[in-house]
Amino acid sequence: MATQRVVIVGAVALGPKTACRIKRLRPDFDVVMVDQDQYISYGGCGIPYYISGDVSDLSALMSTSFHMLRTPEFFEKAKGVRVMTRTRAEAIDRERKTLRVRRLETKEDQEIPYDFLVLATGSLPNKLPIPGVDHPRVMSVSNLHDASAIKEMLSKGAVGRAVIVGAGAIGCEMAEALTDLWGVETSMVEIAPQVLPGVLDSTLARMVASHLDERGVAVYTGETVREILPGDDGESLTVRTSQRDLAADVVITAVGVRPNGFLAAHAGLLVSPRGAVVVNHRLQTSDPCIYAGGDCIEVIHRITGKPFHFPQGSLANRQGRIIGTNIAGGCATFEGSVGSFAVKIFDLAVATAGITHKTAVSEGFDAVQALVIQADRAHFYPTQDLMTLAVVVDRKTRRLLGIQGVSRNGDALVGRINAVSALLARRGTVEDLSNLEVAYTPPFAAAMDIVNALGNTAENILDGLNVTADPDDFETCFLQDAAPDVVCLDVRGPKNAEPFVKAFGDRWINIPQETLAQRLDAVPKDKRLLVVCNSGVRSYEALLQLRAAGIENAVNVQGGVAAIKKSGMIRLDEEGED
Amino acid sequence: MATQRVVIVGAVALGPKTACRIKRLRPDFDVVMVDQDQYISYGGCGIPYYISGDVSDLSALMSTSFHMLRTPEFFEKAKGVRVMTRTRAEAIDRERKTLRVRRLETKEDQEIPYDFLVLATGSLPNKLPIPGVDHPRVMSVSNLHDASAIKEMLSKGAVGRAVIVGAGAIGCEMAEALTDLWGVETSMVEIAPQVLPGVLDSTLARMVASHLDERGVAVYTGETVREILPGDDGESLTVRTSQRDLAADVVITAVGVRPNGFLAAHAGLLVSPRGAVVVNHRLQTSDPCIYAGGDCIEVIHRITGKPFHFPQGSLANRQGRIIGTNIAGGCATFEGSVGSFAVKIFDLAVATAGITHKTAVSEGFDAVQALVIQADRAHFYPTQDLMTLAVVVDRKTRRLLGIQGVSRNGDALVGRINAVSALLARRGTVEDLSNLEVAYTPPFAAAMDIVNALGNTAENILDGLNVTADPDDFETCFLQDAAPDVVCLDVRGPKNAEPFVKAFGDRWINIPQETLAQRLDAVPKDKRLLVVCNSGVRSYEALLQLRAAGIENAVNVQGGVAAIKKSGMIRLDEEGED
Repeated sequence: MATQRVVIVGAVALGPKTACRIKRLRPDFDVVMVDQDQYISYGGCGIPYYISGDVSDLSALMSTSFHMLRTPEFFEKAKGVRVMTRTRAEAIDRERKTLRVRRLETKEDQEIPYDFLVLATGSLPNKLPIPGVDHPRVMSVSNLHDASAIKEMLSKGAVGRAVIVGAGAIGCEMAEALTDLWGVETSMVEIAPQVLPGVLDSTLARMVASHLDERGVAVYTGETVREILPGDDGESLTVRTSQRDLAADVVITAVGVRPNGFLAAHAGLLVSPRGAVVVNHRLQTSDPCIYAGGDCIEVIHRITGKPFHFPQGSLANRQGRIIGTNIAGGCATFEGSVGSFAVKIFDLAVATAGITHKTAVSEGFDAVQALVIQADRAHFYPTQDLMTLAVVVDRKTRRLLGIQGVSRNGDALVGRINAVSALLARRGTVEDLSNLEVAYTPPFAAAMDIVNALGNTAENILDGLNVTADPDDFETCFLQDAAPDVVCLDVRGPKNAEPFVKAFGDRWINIPQETLAQRLDAVPKDKRLLVVCNSGVRSYEALLQLRAAGIENAVNVQGGVAAIKKSGMIRLDEEGED
Repeated sequence: MATQRVVIVGAVALGPKTACRIKRLRPDFDVVMVDQDQYISYGGCGIPYYISGDVSDLSALMSTSFHMLRTPEFFEKAKGVRVMTRTRAEAIDRERKTLRVRRLETKEDQEIPYDFLVLATGSLPNKLPIPGVDHPRVMSVSNLHDASAIKEMLSKGAVGRAVIVGAGAIGCEMAEALTDLWGVETSMVEIAPQVLPGVLDSTLARMVASHLDERGVAVYTGETVREILPGDDGESLTVRTSQRDLAADVVITAVGVRPNGFLAAHAGLLVSPRGAVVVNHRLQTSDPCIYAGGDCIEVIHRITGKPFHFPQGSLANRQGRIIGTNIAGGCATFEGSVGSFAVKIFDLAVATAGITHKTAVSEGFDAVQALVIQADRAHFYPTQDLMTLAVVVDRKTRRLLGIQGVSRNGDALVGRINAVSALLARRGTVEDLSNLEVAYTPPFAAAMDIVNALGNTAENILDGLNVTADPDDFETCFLQDAAPDVVCLDVRGPKNAEPFVKAFGDRWINIPQETLAQRLDAVPKDKRLLVVCNSGVRSYEALLQLRAAGIENAVNVQGGVAAIKKSGMIRLDEEGED
């Protein structure tokens, strides 16, 4: 192939990766990146850490791992890639194969010829469709300009109270950033009935909400923001929700992003109903000389088989390399995504892959959820801590559909989620999870590791051995309804059970599991039994003992008291375990 | 199926798991475990942590996660499983379906009838075939008796110097255990030319050896222990190797274990050349009423397809459940292992899966190794640290054959290895590694995560783009031979390069990568060039620039100066990176 001219629109994540890959494969190709901003090639996902102070200097987000600023000059000298900043792509002439750009400094227009064009136009933050959002103190955190502005206000001490609209990943990261270092009194408003909607099912979402609450963030879920009113002082704001007024010195909106497919659409390229540029597996648009990737496209979800918008710096990087390979004459493909996701929220890490139980049901799967709370390494190893994992599986095919986890040890959690992601991408089953090979040594794993225990639990549910209730069910029928025919059978030791027996009286019965076989007569036969232990393991054992004794009206509360407490449903002081 | 009598020989790991699974599925089955020891159901892999003091009490290794001692009484009451301790299995009568046992306390023999028999006879520590090994101060760490004895000696202050024979996982764990808390002057002697032979290839093994050295452990590789001589005082010992005499108050032998298949062999069951009980995928022996699992069997290696002995508590647990399911009338299979492995050695974690480059070559693969040293999360995130990963791939099929890593963050490392294990088990290719989906957020992963970078690097090597030398090659031809036609081209900044230029004179040339295009005339054309940077990334870029300029006599040193320094080949003080 003769030398080619490649023009790349957008120089943040996918653009630079594509450009560098092309130049490595074909140093003779002429590669130019255009970007309307003066900031290029930065880690946008690092913005919350810049605001929190974890990253002290904005330049760190624009540097290589060897501390070299990724400026236009750097790309020119080190990579042989030309960069035109403050240059907006205006229109593509597909017939003449030119890109018209406007130099924003000089207001001049220019036509750049291309053999291949790459669209790395990214995404645009959604804007709340309500009065008041144009106030200068209503901001998003979608670029380095916002980041600087917010950090400047914080460091001036101009922010005492903040309202974050949206409890997705960025909203949660911002809640930490504002609260932890800056001590800002922070509220979050989320229209969905839970935090991290679409990412977590209810039980784990409640654990996250409970953690936010513990760290002083007021979380209002199921509330709509109606308008944002300027205060009398001209500085403070009032956020009016469907339920309340919240005072704020700054409002941060983090209500999602949408793919920026405008340039593509105007050029007559195929664009999805959500506005994303449509690409094939080689990341080619409907015009084979034009490629697109990163936040402006949709990818195939490997569980549902449907396109979805999943803006992630990691996908942009991998896609950039694929586009580079293809433009240089190779053949590389992007096979889709299982939606692997992680976020750190104060001391809690959340990581997921695949789809939630709620999504699975709406997608027509006969979906079942298993939940395990277990030590994240050998339970005798001093640094062990409880990890919570839930898996969603299809009853009919026993296929894995999704996994979710929360843990204080993010590395340990993300590692497990990544391993399960590899199974999800390959249509793994529950049995594959039970037999997933985990490198074992007491400091880093349990002999029956939590991922294997999760698979075992799901198998036991599918096989009808383990009949479960979720912590949500526990709350509804035991705490809220307090139905007189529902009784908790606590099979832990008496020290653990005592405060619960005190609190709930004869609705909370304590029979330690190892004594159950001898004390079956003490089990009420005319009640619905919720069997609980600390985690769901001994209560499963008890459930089987009850069934063997002909007592069928019992279910095992998944995750046990640990899950109930982590979700903030009950706060009772217990003595040490016995 | 009517109720059945199940007898299990061995009650440490697989035995209890099998017993409990059977009772959960079939509470009506009669299950009995026999074990010659009084200690049962313990985490033997926790012994080094008991000795080190990380685990303060031996009972922790014998307790459930809810702090209940797994005594015979516990199994009886909580699980409905009978246990006969201090009871040695003597012989199987397969025709009459009975097991003859001897009660070691009373010396009585007894016949126990079975419908199903399970062999969980474990492994036996290898004994050095040399004079002096029967001295009471020459010990292994294969059971709780040894563990107690060693800890007692340590806590009495009776151990000033120790020699460990064998630098496998247990040897390395014991080196940490003795040195870290107890301050014992510890030496290790290993017959192979490296530590962790069979687990790591040379480069990573040298990093581990260098770490052991930094922590004060004297490591002697490539040395054979010839004899152990008692000292004149009747207490101290002299370990005589092929190279030296080492004084010791205690000698710990950790030279591997072999499967204990004696009972099976005597009963005429099929046994492998290495003495392991032969089983099918359902873990049935050649007698369909007799199952076996855990350390007494071999499993199929999913890379080589051959049986191998892989004694791991994790496999024993998973196999125990499979045997339990099958005996209860279900159908579960064990599909083999990719040999996932982890060990913590002081502040360094090592984890691997699949086979080493050396093994791959001996198995007939056209094996290629790629090495990457990179931050284990976003390089701008404060807790980032360098991780080292190497992957072994087959040139012809591009199939992944193995992965190895070392890192100070064990959770982050083990998580990556587990994800790659899932690929290895499914005949994944280099491209699968490049596209492995990693949950991305700056605190826990990089946008182009190290596992993906590793896949990319391997692709580039297979495609002939990246032509590499290993740190070992660097040592041989630059440090040792000092061949006059070999020159290092250091493409880092001048501050990094300066001490090397000082040390090596005109054999070490510094041209920063971003200036290389302008300074090609300064590159010697008549020399063999070893191109180095900190990690191998900029040197790869430089290699491509050289090639584009017609300079072909250059190779990229994988892992760069970071690998060279971590392996202890060069110790030079450098200023901060520039």
